[in-house]
Amino acid sequence: MPHLSSRITSINGGGSDGWDVFYRARAMVAAGEPVIELTIGEHDIGTDPAILDAMHRAARAGHTGYASVPGTPALRDSVAARITQHTGIPTGRDNVLITPGGQAALFAAHVACCDPGDRALFIDPYYATYPGTIRAAGAVPHAIPTRAADNFLPDRETLSNAAIAHNATSLLVNSPNNPTGTVYPRDALEGIAQAAQDHDLWVISDEVYDTQIWEGTHISPRALPGMEARTLVVGSMSKSHAMTGSRLGWIVAPEPVIEKLTDLATNTTYGVPGYIQDAAVFALAQGDPLEDAIMAPFRRRRELALGILGGQNLVGHIPCQGAMYLMLDIRGTGLSGEAFANALLDRHRIAVMPGESFGTSAAGHIRVAMTVADDAFASALGTICAFARTLAPAG
Amino acid sequence: MPHLSSRITSINGGGSDGWDVFYRARAMVAAGEPVIELTIGEHDIGTDPAILDAMHRAARAGHTGYASVPGTPALRDSVAARITQHTGIPTGRDNVLITPGGQAALFAAHVACCDPGDRALFIDPYYATYPGTIRAAGAVPHAIPTRAADNFLPDRETLSNAAIAHNATSLLVNSPNNPTGTVYPRDALEGIAQAAQDHDLWVISDEVYDTQIWEGTHISPRALPGMEARTLVVGSMSKSHAMTGSRLGWIVAPEPVIEKLTDLATNTTYGVPGYIQDAAVFALAQGDPLEDAIMAPFRRRRELALGILGGQNLVGHIPCQGAMYLMLDIRGTGLSGEAFANALLDRHRIAVMPGESFGTSAAGHIRVAMTVADDAFASALGTICAFARTLAPAG
Repeated sequence: MPHLSSRITSINGGGSDGWDVFYRARAMVAAGEPVIELTIGEHDIGTDPAILDAMHRAARAGHTGYASVPGTPALRDSVAARITQHTGIPTGRDNVLITPGGQAALFAAHVACCDPGDRALFIDPYYATYPGTIRAAGAVPHAIPTRAADNFLPDRETLSNAAIAHNATSLLVNSPNNPTGTVYPRDALEGIAQAAQDHDLWVISDEVYDTQIWEGTHISPRALPGMEARTLVVGSMSKSHAMTGSRLGWIVAPEPVIEKLTDLATNTTYGVPGYIQDAAVFALAQGDPLEDAIMAPFRRRRELALGILGGQNLVGHIPCQGAMYLMLDIRGTGLSGEAFANALLDRHRIAVMPGESFGTSAAGHIRVAMTVADDAFASALGTICAFARTLAPAG
Repeated sequence: MPHLSSRITSINGGGSDGWDVFYRARAMVAAGEPVIELTIGEHDIGTDPAILDAMHRAARAGHTGYASVPGTPALRDSVAARITQHTGIPTGRDNVLITPGGQAALFAAHVACCDPGDRALFIDPYYATYPGTIRAAGAVPHAIPTRAADNFLPDRETLSNAAIAHNATSLLVNSPNNPTGTVYPRDALEGIAQAAQDHDLWVISDEVYDTQIWEGTHISPRALPGMEARTLVVGSMSKSHAMTGSRLGWIVAPEPVIEKLTDLATNTTYGVPGYIQDAAVFALAQGDPLEDAIMAPFRRRRELALGILGGQNLVGHIPCQGAMYLMLDIRGTGLSGEAFANALLDRHRIAVMPGESFGTSAAGHIRVAMTVADDAFASALGTICAFARTLAPAG
């Protein structure tokens, strides 16, 4: 066999990726053991049948041939209207590329911004694929560390220093944040905008959790002064409409960027199924009521969680302002996130993600996805707190 | 706006791409003019309703969450079984990655084989996206010219010399061939296999037309001695099952390649909709009868074409052994393919692709897609021949 490219063989960066506990849990489930999985960001409901019926109608009506590569005009218009409405920045069809999912959008955005060897910044802790996505695009990932004491928000000076030291090309940000549940406040975003303008960075803004806001307001960096021309916004139907499996996302960016991204799409994906795009148009046309119904369970569970966590003081938490996760501080147990998660799985058959799965900054934390029914969720969270107490050194 | 990457801005290579006549035809259609479009490889039927109903059943049954990134076990098994049956090479689930379409498979295959700057060979004439796909993967495309007199089959020595001169990493081949309609005979494939082994090339074999064989036998280069370890086969449901818009393809390759391609997929696509994969399992389970029904119209039209072309001797043709296209030689008119196609569109409202759209080797030819109803197709082909006569210099 000839050699595989060094790019593809090094996508994962080597070493443990902290996902062992996730795979252990999946193996237990496959073996028929009852495990409460609070690991990945998958809704505990499927896609709304009305959306699936709209998809079927479009397919049966004949929308089964090649769709327009940058997306159907109807969906590009729907996405543009939603972004205009949510951010106040006038956005048109030619600012939108439809992609086969948010992950494909993250990848394409980095290809657009970075040439092979360019440095691409991202903020630690981070969604698991970020460094691999940057490597797949041929660029070199560099993580900006943050501190739990700052709610894992990036520090202006650290950001600026990293941009200079690495002669960076792009900065990937994510608010509402996975895994931390933080919604970036205006001053954090202004710091990012300042760094981007000072150091001529592209900002790639992953906003897939933009409908899951429990406290504060979602602000898109694209809406800040001077940022529209240097921001690529990544969005998706996955989280807002429980359409994870449909792989339907987008990039919103300046027209010349979308034009070149369309060339890339022609040569890397050749578009997205037309009947899925029609289903997305239908889903977006349902407006806030559908989006609210889909986020409601997470809002409820987050309230339950605050009650449970408030009844003890060993397990801390990052303010849970948005997204479908809790980031819990279990440093009081003296264990690493990984050791805690493994012990929790073995002892109580509850699976959570170690903070170490998301970089180095969230060591000593665990991420809990609020993705099981309320009762089971509350019970599992109670068990987690009680289990932490049994591990804590006698005070 | 910061600079876009030079990779994305140069995907198209610059200059005319020979697709002007296609876009002109589309604009005429959009303006309500009656144009017979014989341009792209899109069936004149939609996807079979039974397949769409299977898709809807899978979606309504709840298969709407994230599917396994390398593909569902059921679909990987179905594809492996089909490949084993068609080629005789034992192929298992771990040899198969499901991709969002054949185009995504072509791209991923090049990323797996080529590092940025590596030379990737392909054969001229070629499917329009090939050089852009290679550039998108960061590699450098190099076209191997062929001659109409050789039915556009590559010459062993030319291939070998190019591999040496460019220190090539990969060779992309396509049989049954788009745009020429040639089915590569065994000796041409043996020449390719020899060059691959002599010069340690990966072979990326685009076999998306493997069910459209009118004469001869489809041989996969992967089935030749010594080739399984260095061949990545690209396949798709698009042509065989009239599922172009569903964007469902695959790569068949050695297990270590699929393992790394799965890492790439995790970071660039995150899988393919589960309900589309279920529909593909259903479609493949229908076996030959469905595939035969879908290719039958092209077989009929190809017979019609041979009759019409046999009744004159000005317009020549490459033996049409497979795929849904005719490659016609219009050099007897003294016009280029592009000039002929433009004149044909203006005069007769018939749209075909100039040979020049597919590289330099097929200059003086036009590609005719057999994608309209038999009567209209026969009539259009008759018009093409009559029009050529009016253009030919008096003999």
